[in-house]
Amino acid sequence: MEIKDILESLKNNEISVEEAESKIKNNQYESIGDYAKIDHNRKERSGTSEVVFCQGKKDEFLVNIYKSILEESGEVLGTRASKEQYELVKKSIPGVKYNEISRILKLEKEGKEKIGNVAICTGGTADIPVAEEAAETLEFFGSYVERIYDVGVAGLHRLLSQREKLEKANCIIVIAGMEGALASVVGGMSKVPVIAVPTSIGYGANFGGLAALLSMINSCSNCVSVVNIDNGYGAGYIANQINKLACKELF
Amino acid sequence: MEIKDILESLKNNEISVEEAESKIKNNQYESIGDYAKIDHNRKERSGTSEVVFCQGKKDEFLVNIYKSILEESGEVLGTRASKEQYELVKKSIPGVKYNEISRILKLEKEGKEKIGNVAICTGGTADIPVAEEAAETLEFFGSYVERIYDVGVAGLHRLLSQREKLEKANCIIVIAGMEGALASVVGGMSKVPVIAVPTSIGYGANFGGLAALLSMINSCSNCVSVVNIDNGYGAGYIANQINKLACKELF
Amino acid sequence: MEIKDILESLKNNEISVEEAESKIKNNQYESIGDYAKIDHNRKERSGTSEVVFCQGKKDEFLVNIYKSILEESGEVLGTRASKEQYELVKKSIPGVKYNEISRILKLEKEGKEKIGNVAICTGGTADIPVAEEAAETLEFFGSYVERIYDVGVAGLHRLLSQREKLEKANCIIVIAGMEGALASVVGGMSKVPVIAVPTSIGYGANFGGLAALLSMINSCSNCVSVVNIDNGYGAGYIANQINKLACKELF
Amino acid sequence: MEIKDILESLKNNEISVEEAESKIKNNQYESIGDYAKIDHNRKERSGTSEVVFCQGKKDEFLVNIYKSILEESGEVLGTRASKEQYELVKKSIPGVKYNEISRILKLEKEGKEKIGNVAICTGGTADIPVAEEAAETLEFFGSYVERIYDVGVAGLHRLLSQREKLEKANCIIVIAGMEGALASVVGGMSKVPVIAVPTSIGYGANFGGLAALLSMINSCSNCVSVVNIDNGYGAGYIANQINKLACKELF
Amino acid sequence: MEIKDILESLKNNEISVEEAESKIKNNQYESIGDYAKIDHNRKERSGTSEVVFCQGKKDEFLVNIYKSILEESGEVLGTRASKEQYELVKKSIPGVKYNEISRILKLEKEGKEKIGNVAICTGGTADIPVAEEAAETLEFFGSYVERIYDVGVAGLHRLLSQREKLEKANCIIVIAGMEGALASVVGGMSKVPVIAVPTSIGYGANFGGLAALLSMINSCSNCVSVVNIDNGYGAGYIANQINKLACKELF
Amino acid sequence: MEIKDILESLKNNEISVEEAESKIKNNQYESIGDYAKIDHNRKERSGTSEVVFCQGKKDEFLVNIYKSILEESGEVLGTRASKEQYELVKKSIPGVKYNEISRILKLEKEGKEKIGNVAICTGGTADIPVAEEAAETLEFFGSYVERIYDVGVAGLHRLLSQREKLEKANCIIVIAGMEGALASVVGGMSKVPVIAVPTSIGYGANFGGLAALLSMINSCSNCVSVVNIDNGYGAGYIANQINKLACKELF
Amino acid sequence: MEIKDILESLKNNEISVEEAESKIKNNQYESIGDYAKIDHNRKERSGTSEVVFCQGKKDEFLVNIYKSILEESGEVLGTRASKEQYELVKKSIPGVKYNEISRILKLEKEGKEKIGNVAICTGGTADIPVAEEAAETLEFFGSYVERIYDVGVAGLHRLLSQREKLEKANCIIVIAGMEGALASVVGGMSKVPVIAVPTSIGYGANFGGLAALLSMINSCSNCVSVVNIDNGYGAGYIANQINKLACKELF
Amino acid sequence: MEIKDILESLKNNEISVEEAESKIKNNQYESIGDYAKIDHNRKERSGTSEVVFCQGKKDEFLVNIYKSILEESGEVLGTRASKEQYELVKKSIPGVKYNEISRILKLEKEGKEKIGNVAICTGGTADIPVAEEAAETLEFFGSYVERIYDVGVAGLHRLLSQREKLEKANCIIVIAGMEGALASVVGGMSKVPVIAVPTSIGYGANFGGLAALLSMINSCSNCVSVVNIDNGYGAGYIANQINKLACKELF
Repeated sequence: MEIKDILESLKNNEISVEEAESKIKNNQYESIGDYAKIDHNRKERSGTSEVVFCQGKKDEFLVNIYKSILEESGEVLGTRASKEQYELVKKSIPGVKYNEISRILKLEKEGKEKIGNVAICTGGTADIPVAEEAAETLEFFGSYVERIYDVGVAGLHRLLSQREKLEKANCIIVIAGMEGALASVVGGMSKVPVIAVPTSIGYGANFGGLAALLSMINSCSNCVSVVNIDNGYGAGYIANQINKLACKELF
Repeated sequence: MEIKDILESLKNNEISVEEAESKIKNNQYESIGDYAKIDHNRKERSGTSEVVFCQGKKDEFLVNIYKSILEESGEVLGTRASKEQYELVKKSIPGVKYNEISRILKLEKEGKEKIGNVAICTGGTADIPVAEEAAETLEFFGSYVERIYDVGVAGLHRLLSQREKLEKANCIIVIAGMEGALASVVGGMSKVPVIAVPTSIGYGANFGGLAALLSMINSCSNCVSVVNIDNGYGAGYIANQINKLACKELF
Repeated sequence: MEIKDILESLKNNEISVEEAESKIKNNQYESIGDYAKIDHNRKERSGTSEVVFCQGKKDEFLVNIYKSILEESGEVLGTRASKEQYELVKKSIPGVKYNEISRILKLEKEGKEKIGNVAICTGGTADIPVAEEAAETLEFFGSYVERIYDVGVAGLHRLLSQREKLEKANCIIVIAGMEGALASVVGGMSKVPVIAVPTSIGYGANFGGLAALLSMINSCSNCVSVVNIDNGYGAGYIANQINKLACKELF
Repeated sequence: MEIKDILESLKNNEISVEEAESKIKNNQYESIGDYAKIDHNRKERSGTSEVVFCQGKKDEFLVNIYKSILEESGEVLGTRASKEQYELVKKSIPGVKYNEISRILKLEKEGKEKIGNVAICTGGTADIPVAEEAAETLEFFGSYVERIYDVGVAGLHRLLSQREKLEKANCIIVIAGMEGALASVVGGMSKVPVIAVPTSIGYGANFGGLAALLSMINSCSNCVSVVNIDNGYGAGYIANQINKLACKELF
Repeated sequence: MEIKDILESLKNNEISVEEAESKIKNNQYESIGDYAKIDHNRKERSGTSEVVFCQGKKDEFLVNIYKSILEESGEVLGTRASKEQYELVKKSIPGVKYNEISRILKLEKEGKEKIGNVAICTGGTADIPVAEEAAETLEFFGSYVERIYDVGVAGLHRLLSQREKLEKANCIIVIAGMEGALASVVGGMSKVPVIAVPTSIGYGANFGGLAALLSMINSCSNCVSVVNIDNGYGAGYIANQINKLACKELF
Repeated sequence: MEIKDILESLKNNEISVEEAESKIKNNQYESIGDYAKIDHNRKERSGTSEVVFCQGKKDEFLVNIYKSILEESGEVLGTRASKEQYELVKKSIPGVKYNEISRILKLEKEGKEKIGNVAICTGGTADIPVAEEAAETLEFFGSYVERIYDVGVAGLHRLLSQREKLEKANCIIVIAGMEGALASVVGGMSKVPVIAVPTSIGYGANFGGLAALLSMINSCSNCVSVVNIDNGYGAGYIANQINKLACKELF
Repeated sequence: MEIKDILESLKNNEISVEEAESKIKNNQYESIGDYAKIDHNRKERSGTSEVVFCQGKKDEFLVNIYKSILEESGEVLGTRASKEQYELVKKSIPGVKYNEISRILKLEKEGKEKIGNVAICTGGTADIPVAEEAAETLEFFGSYVERIYDVGVAGLHRLLSQREKLEKANCIIVIAGMEGALASVVGGMSKVPVIAVPTSIGYGANFGGLAALLSMINSCSNCVSVVNIDNGYGAGYIANQINKLACKELF
Repeated sequence: MEIKDILESLKNNEISVEEAESKIKNNQYESIGDYAKIDHNRKERSGTSEVVFCQGKKDEFLVNIYKSILEESGEVLGTRASKEQYELVKKSIPGVKYNEISRILKLEKEGKEKIGNVAICTGGTADIPVAEEAAETLEFFGSYVERIYDVGVAGLHRLLSQREKLEKANCIIVIAGMEGALASVVGGMSKVPVIAVPTSIGYGANFGGLAALLSMINSCSNCVSVVNIDNGYGAGYIANQINKLACKELF
């Protein structure tokens, strides 16, 4: 319930001052037990409702959070969910959908329009789980996604043949492990911001993605900024912001 | 020679098929040269012509680059210039301006319009040189800049009292050294992308900005992406892209 | 045999100078043993008897230690205990209690008074196990604890709404993973010492808590000092010392 | 203005729904501005007015800050000042005093009482500049300091012979470079909190103090918490907080 | 469609100048696609057709790739295959062979000639799996391999007694973990390029092969270049290139 | 068989020149298959026969090596053996003995004299497995060992009370995890070389023993040198060398 | 003297058992002295006589080395020379030549033939000093060099337009700082070995070339091996070996 | 006052039991002071009186220490002295000698006997300053030193030709930068302890000696232990201890 609606109800004498005060305070955040403070205020602050980071969440906690957000927003998005968590949540929320690749667990309003254009490139097929986490995040928030996968620099023609798609994007996400060189190459060809996501794909002196992270942070292409290793959700979140700004449809 | 001209010549029987094929193959990478030219057009359109990284450039080289860009674009922007480089360039280009804080050395067209809104926050006064590098880059490219300096989290009220300014921005740049916590705090309050710039300000276990970099890359705020330590120019470049997308004035 | 008794014996000609010298030299490091004894007295006075670090302890060893401390002190506290260790110890000490969240395994005297005030803040719910290790340590030693959980900086209003609780504390423990920014923000609002505990919560460039550790060590807030990653017990131990100093009830 | 008052005004038609919504949104953060005011009062009450970090400050800026604080507080403390900065400030504030060892530049009210007891130990003579920064900070804030210098563990008898002094302290600061073992040894002998300061003293695999920092963070003594490398001021600040809490003279 | 054909069509008035221009621009990056085709020819000529990195590949994907390459090339090589993957692929390709040591899974044409000479040295027996990955790669591509295993520097006479074998090689691969000193020692005895492969064999401050990697990168022997930790395949690939260049049988 | 014995046999016409040559070459090292070169020459070179690093050795390989060394030397010592490896080797060598703490798997000649004196100190009980690896190695090589366990610096009196034992040693091994301060403290009290062994005991910013390693390498006590993390065998090996030199019984 | 000859002498009573034993022990390593002689011959034959690393050499030492090599070889090559060292050496060897960019100080025989083909690519102009060190090394040793400078991936067309030059090389050296992505891109286009040289060009999280080094070691292109940061000489040395092997003119 | 004297006084009724007790308790840690005195006696006996670390010492302090030690011991040794410090000390102690290579500043008794045998090997000439620091330390303490310089593994014959010298040593010091492989090679040839000293000689991924340090700590040769980067003094100190133990002339 929006603050404005609460105020209207008060003005229309549908609720008392005390009820209004209580609802407004609850609107800022909702305490679940001692342990969690669900940030219902977030949508007003940031334009998107709270998203659940499922990994490591306790079972009863997870289900309560899913139910609370679903009730408030009519839909709910969770990332890094396990198949066991899917089975668990499905018992309480039968319509919930799970994607084993992206590990996204969500229940989404139907018929959402996808606007604008965000391109997502990956260096290899092993980077696709991170890419799909970004892609499903973008689509949940209402952005159109163009997938350009397996275009790593060891075979440059694969990327070059896709350049028309790149030119249509309002923002490009580049997802790559190993040495992460793809971010610089795409950055050199791009007129729009490039969000680079290093992945932990690789071995040896890759050090769990550190090599790709340092590579991307030191990119010689000006338009590259970087998020955490394997953080597909974060890249999707930011790309959605940029895409919506370009579409004049944010907030 | 443009591809179209070659084809016209062929059609007009001025050259043979073999000659045309040869010219086109030469043109192929010149046409990738074309790509660069298109790129150049983009630069004119978006206001981001080539920028000079002055630090370490040899004297005669520096002057030639400045003269060449000035001739082509009517203006020129350089970063990380020393006072000695300013004295040197001034001999050839008397109108060039130097800012000792930002270390920007530029000659700019007059009467440029600044559009949109980019906010730049710093944790402390020591971060201002990096912030001014970003700010002057943005202004050179035609973006309006709101400076919100010295609002580090050790005195949170300083930041909170500026939140109306933050709400008007299409993109926010956060520049902080030491532990770089400001990026997360601003990110938690923002509806638009936050570009975080770790600075090398600090001492001890700061390790030349590594502590702030890791802090920002691990930010718990979703909208934060990161550029290299002290990279004010890069942050300004990306923020300008986002601001222009939001203003529908890019491309 | 106390030094005084030896001297009396000498004076009474019950022993020779040589015998006295030999006894005293033996006593010398036993008197450092005395030092330990004094230390032991301090522990009784301050409530901090020896605590068991259960993780990795061999089974028979663990049970013996628990029994020995219980016999001497009438209560016993152990940290980082597994459920298997709980089952094992319970066979010998039926009254022992186990908390799966904090992994504390203890048998505590009833009716203990909790004095003073220590506040414990966490960035997220995932930090609660470390927080509860600190909290139960404090309570076992007789300090009153105020829990302020899930107040990370990505939603700052959650923390700000709790600031009255913070103002009542003699010492504040801040427990956070990812970028650990909460320590600086709480530090900026605090008049009392802040003990910061980085946690290993996070992923990617978090490097098992290193990012949060560096962030907290570089804090721009003066009152922040730091203990090891996930070291909830240590933070509780120090906070109890400070709280008792403030209550004039230590020593 | 409280939320309830806003709602009453709305109900009484004194303000519109739009005005009420705006006031409520502002209300969320505005109470903090008050908090800042309180913060300022606290500084006056507790004796810890703002301290100047001189290193890297521009000349005119430095002089203005010194004059401003002096005017408001009647005294002023600055850390990491160079001799050149002393010469500069002396021109405007003739009574200012400079200590070449501690690099403290201050003008202090006369006749200050020093209460409580904080002990400061150093491993070697090379650590004394950091120790004196801590000591002068403590004395400026009104704490009594016991200096116990050059008691490194390579000659343990030096430390052991000082143990009576250690027993009188409300808080102990341990300052050591190289391997930083002194913090654990003092911690093992102490009933009160130990603030450990790693220093950059050493060479080779010391890595600018990192070895000592890691050593202290991993201390096997429970009462040790750690501040940044060479951060004598921070250690003094925290030790003063603890000492004052113990003296019941804080706030 | 080749450029020449486009031009003929234009000349024959089958297409307009505009159509020709469009087709040629598309061809521009397709000709890079052509480049890939040439690249493909090179692979056939040089014996290095595409190689499968099996680790982490999904089951159905793996089988399809094996079948596709086998159909095109008449043979197929895969690295880092598990025994489970072998069982799986064997169902579709009964003739496939698996080596549990090298983890190579391949089906190879019979009667291949092995030319030239590549020597492979290991420090210990624990390095042999990486060495065999390199050796089988070389043999698959048609290079002759001399195995010189367990000749680490702790017993130098073992290596010295093999020096005649070393002198016959066109390229030497050195595979060693722990401190990786073998690369420098072999490099000091070699007239030909030495490809050094650090392995993750070791413990403690070996940090998963980092110690050996740094050691090899800093080698005092000029002829040493380095590939990633445990990258036997990469070393074999490069050594084959060098061996074939020396045999004048490449391209 | 010693070289001298071979030569005597030749001189006495018990063997031919060809047989002698073959035996001498085998004496330098014995090739087992392609994969191992047993360094029988080692005893002459270094005074101790080859020791088996069991961890990760393939089963058939392990048994062959144990049998080969046992045949040549009449006894055999292996480190880091698993219980499974013990079961395996016992089938071929029934007299072999296994210690689950030290993970030493050996068959030793009876009635060995233990000479000299090597003291082994540990910080805690968790360091004992590494200490016992060192102790059994020393005893196998014929050195007398004094065990001084659980004397970490958090309770200094425990170490000080053992001072007389320390004074009798020809060499002291110090084994400690966490911050490794014990090495410096023992070093400060010692007239003989101290071999420091960092252990991986600890958590958080211990980084698998790196903190203790750096601490020990930076020790302020001159007599401390360091071996790899958890390398009890290496420390025992070196201490045996020093002890034997002091006893004039080496070689 | 061969082992067999020693044994024959013993059998013939020409030497004693003791003499035979001593000769056999010496024999094990002495054959190596011969090897060193061969090594020396190789240098003359292959054109790679000893090269001087000038940096840090004492003055009198440097001059003597230059004179000694010049006398023996008729030419001399030194790397990392300062201008002061040039002035110094010139006094004794007037014909010596110095290049301020490459810091090569040499006196070279005239009319040397340059054979084969080695291509050297750089990411930017700042990498040229390292590239010229490699190039002059190659030319001194008699290899033909193709310079392809300033073709970094931020403007990919610059590299693509040079593709034909790359195809003619027997070996390619890629020299790049910042994120070092150029190595992977060139590697993806190359049929011959690529020697990658990370440079220290960059700032911030570049960490003196570490970012580029890790990037290159993790390259997704198979043909890339890596030498130390800024090690142009080493890359030139190895590329010369490969080029000569390809030309069949080595040894 | 000795314990015995106190007891005599008590027995003679010159002091009371209480006075005796107080004196003895004071004596308790003074007897640790006694320990220092014994330590002092040991120094005289073993030749290792206190040594001055000159680097960074204040001028007046330095001169006083030199005079004090000289007065007590009749000789004095200082390490890491600058030429300026030499000039300064010479004014007060005209006979003092300075070595610019080793940076040792000393005044030594004449006609000292050098006993035993310690070999010092270096990888290159650049490591000689560290080696001479070790060598002069050993000679000052009365150990005989065999210098074996510039025997790095890139030309193995140089080391092998010196092996008879190595065989005569009671202890070997190996000093090497870059990859530090020399320690393992010498270790593989040695029957006595090898003290390895990594040096900061090198560049790029050497990281100030870290590469050599890690290499040496991970050495595959059992007899290698390691001291800090560039710590020639420490290596000399330990080698002297071992040499004296072997000579039975220590203590």
